[in-house]
Formats: sequence, C-alpha cells, structure tokens
Amino acid sequence: MARIVMKFGGTSMAGSERIRRVANIVRRQQAAGHEVAVVVSAMAGETDRLVTFCREADALYDPAEYDVVVAAGEQVTAGLLAMTLQAMGCKARSWLGWQLPVRTDDAHAKARIESIDSPALIASMAAGEIAVIPGFQGLTTDNRITTLGRGGSDTSAVAVAAAIKADRCDIYTDVDGVYTTDPRIVAKARKLRHVTYEEMLELASVGSKVLQTRSVGLAMKEGVRVQVLSSFIDDDAPAADTLPGTMIVSDAELANIQKDLNVESHLITGIAADKNEAKVTLTRIADRPGAVATIFGPLAAANINVDMIIQNIAKDKGETDVTFTVPAADLARTQALIEERKEEIGYYRMIAEGKIAKISVVGVGMRSHAGIAATMFKALADRGINIQAISTSEIKVSVLIDEDETELAVRVLHTAYGLDAVDEAA
Amino acid sequence: MARIVMKFGGTSMAGSERIRRVANIVRRQQAAGHEVAVVVSAMAGETDRLVTFCREADALYDPAEYDVVVAAGEQVTAGLLAMTLQAMGCKARSWLGWQLPVRTDDAHAKARIESIDSPALIASMAAGEIAVIPGFQGLTTDNRITTLGRGGSDTSAVAVAAAIKADRCDIYTDVDGVYTTDPRIVAKARKLRHVTYEEMLELASVGSKVLQTRSVGLAMKEGVRVQVLSSFIDDDAPAADTLPGTMIVSDAELANIQKDLNVESHLITGIAADKNEAKVTLTRIADRPGAVATIFGPLAAANINVDMIIQNIAKDKGETDVTFTVPAADLARTQALIEERKEEIGYYRMIAEGKIAKISVVGVGMRSHAGIAATMFKALADRGINIQAISTSEIKVSVLIDEDETELAVRVLHTAYGLDAVDEAA
Repeated sequence: MARIVMKFGGTSMAGSERIRRVANIVRRQQAAGHEVAVVVSAMAGETDRLVTFCREADALYDPAEYDVVVAAGEQVTAGLLAMTLQAMGCKARSWLGWQLPVRTDDAHAKARIESIDSPALIASMAAGEIAVIPGFQGLTTDNRITTLGRGGSDTSAVAVAAAIKADRCDIYTDVDGVYTTDPRIVAKARKLRHVTYEEMLELASVGSKVLQTRSVGLAMKEGVRVQVLSSFIDDDAPAADTLPGTMIVSDAELANIQKDLNVESHLITGIAADKNEAKVTLTRIADRPGAVATIFGPLAAANINVDMIIQNIAKDKGETDVTFTVPAADLARTQALIEERKEEIGYYRMIAEGKIAKISVVGVGMRSHAGIAATMFKALADRGINIQAISTSEIKVSVLIDEDETELAVRVLHTAYGLDAVDEAA
Repeated sequence: MARIVMKFGGTSMAGSERIRRVANIVRRQQAAGHEVAVVVSAMAGETDRLVTFCREADALYDPAEYDVVVAAGEQVTAGLLAMTLQAMGCKARSWLGWQLPVRTDDAHAKARIESIDSPALIASMAAGEIAVIPGFQGLTTDNRITTLGRGGSDTSAVAVAAAIKADRCDIYTDVDGVYTTDPRIVAKARKLRHVTYEEMLELASVGSKVLQTRSVGLAMKEGVRVQVLSSFIDDDAPAADTLPGTMIVSDAELANIQKDLNVESHLITGIAADKNEAKVTLTRIADRPGAVATIFGPLAAANINVDMIIQNIAKDKGETDVTFTVPAADLARTQALIEERKEEIGYYRMIAEGKIAKISVVGVGMRSHAGIAATMFKALADRGINIQAISTSEIKVSVLIDEDETELAVRVLHTAYGLDAVDEAA
C-alpha cells in the first residue's frame, strides 16, 4: 500500500467523457490498494475564458478579484471528478483550497504555497475516501483566495504530496514521459526512465514544457518523487506503478538505480530547444563599473525576465558589446525601455533579433567530464551552423543559433551525444 | 444616506458589457451617498451549463459536490463586478458565501439560510467599499459549500438586507416592476407602485415569476422592504430612489401609503395565469377516512408538489371524486405512482389533463369584501369559459380552465375588476 498523489491537466479534464477516463485511472489506483489524492486543473480553455472576462472588466484588474474569478475553473472540475468517482462506486470528496486550507502568501495571481493543513486530508484518505483537490488555488491569512500563476497545478500536486508525505506524485500529461529531446523533431528520441531534479529544471527552463519549473524546484526541496506519465492510456493498461513513465529523482537515487541496473550514466541526458527568446545586442558601451546595471535594472523593474547575458571582451578605447536574451513576447517593451535610456546607458547601436533559437544540452554527467561543450561546438560547426552566443551552467551548455536551423541542430546533437540508441536504459 | 442592497439576475450579468451597465447603476447609487451591497447571479446560461456537467458526471449526483460545481458561476460574476467597479474608480470587493460566511443548514442544493455574519461586511461598507456578494451560495457548519436552489439569489439578497438592516433591497430584473397582470397578454396592464408581501406571494406562486417565492416569504418575516425594478435603464436615468419600480411592503405600510396618497385600496391587485400545472381526477373513491392519505402520501414522498386539491361532494353509495393539480413536468411520474397503488387507493378511473391553466385573482382587499369570487365566475361564464375546478385562499381565488382560453380569461377578468384604468395609483 502506498500513498499517491495524481495530477491531471486541463486537456485530461476537458469535458465529461475525459473526466470519466480520469476517474477510471484514479479508481484503478485505489483498487490496487493505494490511498489516493487527485489534483486537477480547470478544463482546457476555461482559464483563458475567465482571464478574458477579467481583462474585459478592467485592463489593470485587481489580482485579488482575478483570483476569485479564475479559481472557479478548478473548483468546477474538482466537484465533477468527485461526482464521477462516486458514480463508479468510489468514496470521494472535493477539498477546495480554502477548505484544506492551502496557505499561501498574499501575492495574488502568483502566490507561493506556505503550508497545507494535512490531518483532515490524511484521515479522510485513510478512511478510503479519494481526495479531489483543485490545483492552482490557495488562501491568504486574510481569508482571501489566491492562485499560483499559470501552470500552478503541478506545484499544488507536489505541495500536497509533500504535506501528506506521499510515496509518489504522478503527473499525468499529454506526453508519456520525458524524452531525450522533442520526439516530433527527432524520431529516435528515447523516453528517459529517470531524470534528476536538476536536469528536469534545466530541461523545463529551456522549453521542454512537461512540468512547471516551480513544481520541480519544490519537489527537489521537499524530496518528493515525481513521475511523469501519459493520461491517454487504455482502460486495461497496467496501474501506474508499473507504467513506464519518467521518474524524477535525486542525484543519489539515480546513482543507486544505475548501480542496481548496472548501467553507466549518460553524459548528456537531453537536448532542449527554445524558440521563444529574442536577442538584443548593445554595441560600444563604455566599459565602466555600473554600466550593466543601467541596462538590467529597468528591465527587472518592468518584470522582464532576462535569460542569457553575454558581455564580449572589451575592445579598444574601453568599449564593450553586451548581448542578452528576453522572452520574444517582451522584445518590443525591452526595446522601448532601452531606447528611453540611450543617454544614460551610453550605447552606440541596439540590434534586436527575434528569429533565434536557444539549443541546450543538459546532463548531470557533465559535472565530471570535460569536452562536452567542445563536442557541441564541433558538431554544429561541421554542419555549418553558426553559434551567435554561448552560455553555460554546471549541468548545461546553451547556444543561440538562427531559428531556421533549430531542427537540424537538435538532430545533429542528439546523434553526436549518442542519444539515438535503440534500447531504453536508466 | 441609506444602506441599500441591490440584486442583479443572470440576464444582467451575461457578459462584460452588461456587467459594466450593472456597475454603472451601482456606482450611481453609491455616488448618491448610499452604502451599497450588491448580490449577483451567475451569467445567464452558466448555471444550466454547470448542471449539465453534473448530470453527465452522475445522474444521481451528490448534492454536496453539485453545490461545489454550481456555486462557481456566482463566484465568477462577483469577482468580475468587483473589478469592473474598481475600473470605474469605486472601492469594491467580493465576499464569497464562505467568506462572510452565509451560514445555512446542510440540505445541499436546496439549503436554507440560518444566519449571515454581518460585522465585517458592515464595517467594509461604512468605509466606502461596495460589497459584492455572490447569490445562491452558503456554508454548512461542516465548512462545505451549499446552494439555495434555483433562483436562490433573490433570497440571498433579502437575507443580506435583513442581516445588515438595509433600508431597502432593490431587485433588478428584466421587467420594470410588478404588473396587474402579464403585459404581454393585456396591453392595459398597469404597473403597481406597491404590493403587499402576501399578495406578492400569491402572485409569485401562481406564475408571475418576478421574484422567487421564498425571498418574498423571508422579506415578510424579516420586514425587509423590497423594490422590484428594471435593470435595463438608461445611464442617465434617475437613481433608484426615484425610480418607479414596485415596492413590496407590509399591509400596515400599504395602508399608511394609501392614506397619505388619499387613494382607496383596490379589491383586486393582480391577475395571474399559470400554464404549468396538470390536473388529475380519480373517480369513485371510497368515501372513508384515510382514503385521501393513500393518494397524497406517496406523492409527497416522491417530492411532487400538489397544489390544488378538490374533493367533490360525496355521491351515492359512499363514493367520491378527487381532483388535484401537480406541476405538468411531474404528471407522468404522478400517473405511474397512482397506477401502482390502484388497489390500495381503490379508485375507478384516473383522468389526467395536461392542457389546463390556473387563473388567479389576488388582492388583500378581498378579505373585507364579499362577492369577489362571484364576479369572477360570472365574468368567465359570460364569455363561455368553463370552470373545471375552484380553490380559494384568504386573498386569492383560483380556477382551472382550458389552456386555450388563458389569454381570454385574463383579459376578461382584468376588465371585470376595473384594473384597466389609465392612471397609476398605489
């Protein structure tokens, strides 16, 4: 017997027929002898519908009232799933964010979970009742509804799993696991049986949108074992215990698993591509202390998330070029903010480029091996792909290239790092 | 300065543009110097959509989870109206049923309000904040969401008005008041400036669906002055204080008003028609104690609401005929239940008739005047309209007639009781 949290996204909850499929998956987990809590998203499209209403009501809407409106979407699916489970003969009940409660800070529309009261929930589950919990929602100390920001239901599921000390948090998605790269780009992409929290964080942050980044960070912090698996499974498929999804684990657990299976760790776990960034270069900036702050201070104040920052080697006459990336959706605002401060920053030209892609190779094995980056640069150069910028972290190397070369680059690197293998290994 | 509760139905809340119109009406009440609380319904069609989801989830759905699902509709409109008011520069916030809280019993899907905690609400309103309250929803002592049954938002508004001792509860509807009869049937129907609680109860219960019956009963019990007025008013119309809606008041207040205006009370206040009833006659039932109980006990147990019951004079041989009416929607179930118990009840034939209408004349003046019923019977007979059954209460006379003669009967009676007058009086 295990205690399991299951999470289903909006596509899985879109309409009565799909909710029935979800209920069937949940029912079978309980029938296998487990205590089960289910965290659900709103029906696909519903949150967008509600957000549109908010924008129509007030372009600068009050985030506290926004939370009242959008939290309704998950409330509906939670009630419907509880009913559907009851129709199948299961004991089930919904627990809304304010009922548990899921305590959050008061940063409306982007709240962070602080704690979840678990005793009543645990007692209910122990009594054989399936707990159905709307994701994405919480409660401030002022007794007002909060939401966690888009995609927050993954985080809700991990937080519930941590609170009730669940053995596992199963995230059901429209993919059946985490792959070495996007299978739509590389037919030989392999599903990973295991991936570490840090690898998942890097993969998620560079465009492999299987899980919300914040949920992975929380799982790492709380030591919650997260499994990614498909919600599109047949009614007669095995229960999730034996489903071949991807398990997200700690470095130590991965090492143990690899030892047990007697397999070597790969140097590179996966390759991610992100076309949603834009590149901005400011030329001939005075190479003096504080110059960079005059660029990035205003962007941070405007809540524009700067990702890569590359400052080239200072040229003659104490001048330097600075290149950075921002979300493509923020490019126009970024250009306007920089333009306004041209005097203050003191640059010569601003060159913006929206048609770029960031390609990243990710793997914990990188820590102990040299030459990972060199392999990348050579493989790309051999195919004539020009690297516009480079950035590295402990377990990741990222490059910016022309957007048109995205698919080619991913395929070349997938082969170069030996990820095209046929068999599945840890 | 007055303290006012305003209530808007689903048609008024259907979409951003209409919510903006509502906000404008509310804003102007506040600008006139009043403390304002607003009770809102879900967008028109939304509750039906949510109920359909519930039925698809489980034909015998758990009413506790049904309440979780359907309460979401009013939650959304409450948040949106609060935002829209803020966009107009007003201070406003939503108060959900569980936040106030609105305490109810635990009869899910048809709960009754027991109390509303008012201090926080009153303090917020006194500070100039418009309180936006979703109608229809409450909270059990177990901390679970309840709803009051369809149309419950009128009741919520009256209950809030009672709790905060409001000077007036304005119910904005898609009609601009209560008329002597349906203006679509009788062009000369007059809008009533005042009507008593009891008259309104009788009018509401016989098909004049301006207000939910329960809300009128609560207003009478709590002494809440209720005004019915139109939500389709121009932006530059006068504030509601001077709007010519219909005020629902006590007998004593009506008497005072009539004295002040120096007008006589009408004998008959209004005429209502209801086509949603069906008639069942059981012939030759043994005229013995308990016979009637064997008919109506099973119907009550099946939650079928029997309205009129007429037992004809016992005939020869100790036999009698019993006629009664039920909602047309329940006719088939009623017939099945009676058929099953044919032996036990001991009737000869069951005659069911769906194509009937109930025509009622209502007025508190009836109490002190004879001949009201006689006028009705003669007026109908003069036009050849056959009366199938008669039932009376202290302030109402109802008859059943053929459904095809509904409009004719209403017009004839409207004239017969002198309601066609041109001027408006109390």
